[in-house]
This record gives sequence, structure tokens and C-alpha cells, in this order.
Amino acid sequence: MYCFESLIRVRYGETDRMGYLYYGHYPEYFEVSRTDMIRSLGLSYKEIEDMGIIMPVRSLKVDYRLPARYDELLKVKSCLSKLPEIKLDIDYEIKNEEDKLICTGNTVLAFVDVKSRRPRRAPDFFLEAVRRYF
Amino acid sequence: MYCFESLIRVRYGETDRMGYLYYGHYPEYFEVSRTDMIRSLGLSYKEIEDMGIIMPVRSLKVDYRLPARYDELLKVKSCLSKLPEIKLDIDYEIKNEEDKLICTGNTVLAFVDVKSRRPRRAPDFFLEAVRRYF
Amino acid sequence: MYCFESLIRVRYGETDRMGYLYYGHYPEYFEVSRTDMIRSLGLSYKEIEDMGIIMPVRSLKVDYRLPARYDELLKVKSCLSKLPEIKLDIDYEIKNEEDKLICTGNTVLAFVDVKSRRPRRAPDFFLEAVRRYF
Amino acid sequence: MYCFESLIRVRYGETDRMGYLYYGHYPEYFEVSRTDMIRSLGLSYKEIEDMGIIMPVRSLKVDYRLPARYDELLKVKSCLSKLPEIKLDIDYEIKNEEDKLICTGNTVLAFVDVKSRRPRRAPDFFLEAVRRYF
Repeated sequence: MYCFESLIRVRYGETDRMGYLYYGHYPEYFEVSRTDMIRSLGLSYKEIEDMGIIMPVRSLKVDYRLPARYDELLKVKSCLSKLPEIKLDIDYEIKNEEDKLICTGNTVLAFVDVKSRRPRRAPDFFLEAVRRYF
Repeated sequence: MYCFESLIRVRYGETDRMGYLYYGHYPEYFEVSRTDMIRSLGLSYKEIEDMGIIMPVRSLKVDYRLPARYDELLKVKSCLSKLPEIKLDIDYEIKNEEDKLICTGNTVLAFVDVKSRRPRRAPDFFLEAVRRYF
Repeated sequence: MYCFESLIRVRYGETDRMGYLYYGHYPEYFEVSRTDMIRSLGLSYKEIEDMGIIMPVRSLKVDYRLPARYDELLKVKSCLSKLPEIKLDIDYEIKNEEDKLICTGNTVLAFVDVKSRRPRRAPDFFLEAVRRYF
Repeated sequence: MYCFESLIRVRYGETDRMGYLYYGHYPEYFEVSRTDMIRSLGLSYKEIEDMGIIMPVRSLKVDYRLPARYDELLKVKSCLSKLPEIKLDIDYEIKNEEDKLICTGNTVLAFVDVKSRRPRRAPDFFLEAVRRYF
């Protein structure tokens, strides 16, 4: 298992008229956190794409427990619990400044060849970088 | 059961560098569609809020099947399959211009009193408006 | 001169905790309106891009006069006041449901060859489509 | 004069199909930077709002010089060049990782009483915090 935590501050434009972080922005927070997690492994999502592999999201789940407010500095944690051979399955947890769990989530991403637009296995260098955690 | 379909055209700013509608925008499309569905029942989400009831999202699920592209006119369908006494449980389907299913999803919303910030039952006028469909 | 008006309803996720349409969403409304304007001329921004011409925005101006609220159906007007030989210069006006002017704006877009990433003249078919208005 | 610089990394969802940071996201980057600038003065935009003063944006200008790309860490600088007695007039500069200027901009914000929704002077504690720089 491998986890990484990002800090993301809630922007004004991300709140809605309820005064809370809009529910539709959580997937982008997950994306920021998983990009940081990949970077923390010495990899770069951008370089993976530049090599001709895109990683479209296949599924998303979010459970909203407590609201997040404007200007709060949230801890967004991404955890890889399985070796990502065919799919990248990531669990998320968001905690607020008082360390209360405000949200859990999951995304599953595929590895897709950008030219053929067909699914493929994770590239070897990616598996190498994470294998030691499993 | 009660369903309603909205038409939403993919905006340029909603695409990402993969060339597709960014996965994080689907929840907002669901929101537009369920607001239209509520309007089609002779209700108004805005008026519900103005009466002191907010409806935070408790959970979200999205299954992405096919990508959506810039400028496509998508059909976003919202279906209410249960009488919303305590929660508003809505299923979604998005189809593209060729009528292919590109996405399914679900959201569960609560009814919350804006002053006490505590859950409550759906207001009577809301239940009256939908009861005939169940 | 050539003008076209789009109708855009303010989405929940586009409001902020002030209760108004967030100031950062107006540029996207302008984009929707100018895309509709181009479509109304029998052209398609998407096809222009597919032909290898991208149109990056060079400058943006917005004057905010009155707030726009959740669920309001706004009239977003795009006007082309000059023949777009080198640049596409568009003026915008947004009016609310009571027909009050809530915002004016302007964008200037360039025509850029997608391969060389260098500026170029507007393609002939584009100029042909708009010439009769000038 | 008082300046402050924020670091903002371009998110995947903020790029568009041109592969660049979408032009409509720059105003939000300005907002993040000016919020950081206000925080760096020992103030908090959130607390100003909690005291009953909102600060709607009156005007926005952006000049786009070079594109910003996915995952780039941008330097977004906010400068206050006048004492903000009636309006908060801020100039922005964005530089990329190679320290090239990619964008300049300006916003003017008003101070508005949240109850009466009428313009007012800047609150005294705000002027006190910035007066030494002018």
C-alpha cells in the first residue's frame, strides 16, 4: 500500500451559494492529490502522457460526510491499495483543519494507448516504481 | 418513477488536454439535469432553498463508458425511482449525439434545515408534486 | 456588424458563497456565446480547429455591473464589429431576466497555425461567411 | 506598493483541448493570489466577509502572452499600487517555470455592505494594515 497527502486550500470560486465547497469540485481535488502521489513516486503523470499513454477515469465514487468551507486548508490523501497492473485503483480521504474526516472516495483509471485508444497494461517503469509497496 | 432529460452542450473550457469532457464536470451536468427535472415538476430548487431547506449531496457515483467531446450536444437524463421522503435518490444516464450511452451515475441528496443544519423530511409540497409517479 | 444572443442559465456550481455567479465564470459564458455566434454563421469552431487552426484568446475585459443569481436565464450577446482578418474582436453584453444590463466585455482572439504555433490570417471561408455584415 | 507571490500548479481539469490552461481559469488564479496577498498582510478575506463586508469584482482585464501548460508551477504575483480607500485595485503578473511572463492582469474590487448591498469605504483595520506601504 502506498499513500500520499496533498494540502489544498478551498478557493472562493469553488464554494457555492450554500457557502460550502461545491460537490462537483471534489473529483478535481482527487486529481490533484493523485497527481501529487504519482509525483512523489518519482514519476510524472505528464511524462506518462507524453509517452503516449493516457489514463481516463473509468469510475468515481464520493461519500460526502461534512461540508468544507472557503479558505480551509484540506488534507487530501490518495492511497494505492493494489498493484496497478491493468487499472489504477485509488482510495481518497479528505480531512479538514480540525482533522475531521469530511469525505471518502475512490477512482479507477485505465491505461490507454493514445494512438489506438485501446486499453493496455501499465508501463513497466510505472510498475517498477510502485512494486516495492506491495 | 419520474424521468426528465436535459440537453447540455460540452463547452470548450470543460474539455481537458486529452480532448474530452473532463471527468470532474459530470457532477455539474447531473446537477443541471436534476434542477431541470425538479423544474419540470412545477417546483424550483431555488424556491426550496429560499424556504430554508438546503439539499446537500451525500453521495455520488459515476461510471464513465465513452468519452464526450467538445461541442457535442449531450442528453442528460435524471430519474427519480423512489418517493423522496428522507433522501432524494436520482439515477443519471448521459447519451451522446449518436445516442450511445456514455455515462451512468447516481446521487443521493438530503433535505437539511438551513438554520439548524440538521436533516429533515422532504417538505410536503415536494412530496405532493411527485407522489403521482410512485 | 454581426451579433448573436445565447441563453445561459446560471448553474448552482457556478455561484459562490456571496450567492452570485462567480466572476471567474463570465469568460466561459463569453466562450459559449461566441461559439454559438460562429455556429449561427454556418461555421463551427470545432471544424476550424480540426483544420489545424487554433484561436487562443489574447485579451479579455469584463465590466461587472450587477450580480447574476442562481437559476437566472441570462442573455449573452456576442457582437463582431470588425472584419476579423487577423484577429477576432468580439464585444459582449449580458442581460438578466428583467432585461437589465449586468455585464459588458470584450475578447480578442488570434488565428494560430496548430503545427507551427505561429499567428496567421483568418481562413478564407471564415472571412467569406462574415464579409456580408461589414 | 505591496506585492505578494503565490505558487499555483496547473491542474489537469484546468487545461483545455488546446493543451493549455483555459483562458477562463486565470481570474480564479488571480483570486487565489489576492487572497494570499491579503493573508500575508495579517488579514483574512474570510474574516472581512464574516464582518459583513463583501468585495465584489467590478472589473477584470487579462492580457495573455504565452500559454501555460499542465502541471507547470506558476508564479502569480498580486500588487497593490494604491491605498484601497474605496476600491481595491490590484495588478497581476503570472510567470512560468522558466520565469517568462505569460500574463498580466488587473482587477478592481469594491467594498460592499452585505446587508444593504451598498458600497462603503474600506474598513479601518484594512487600511491600517496596508498604510505603511504607501
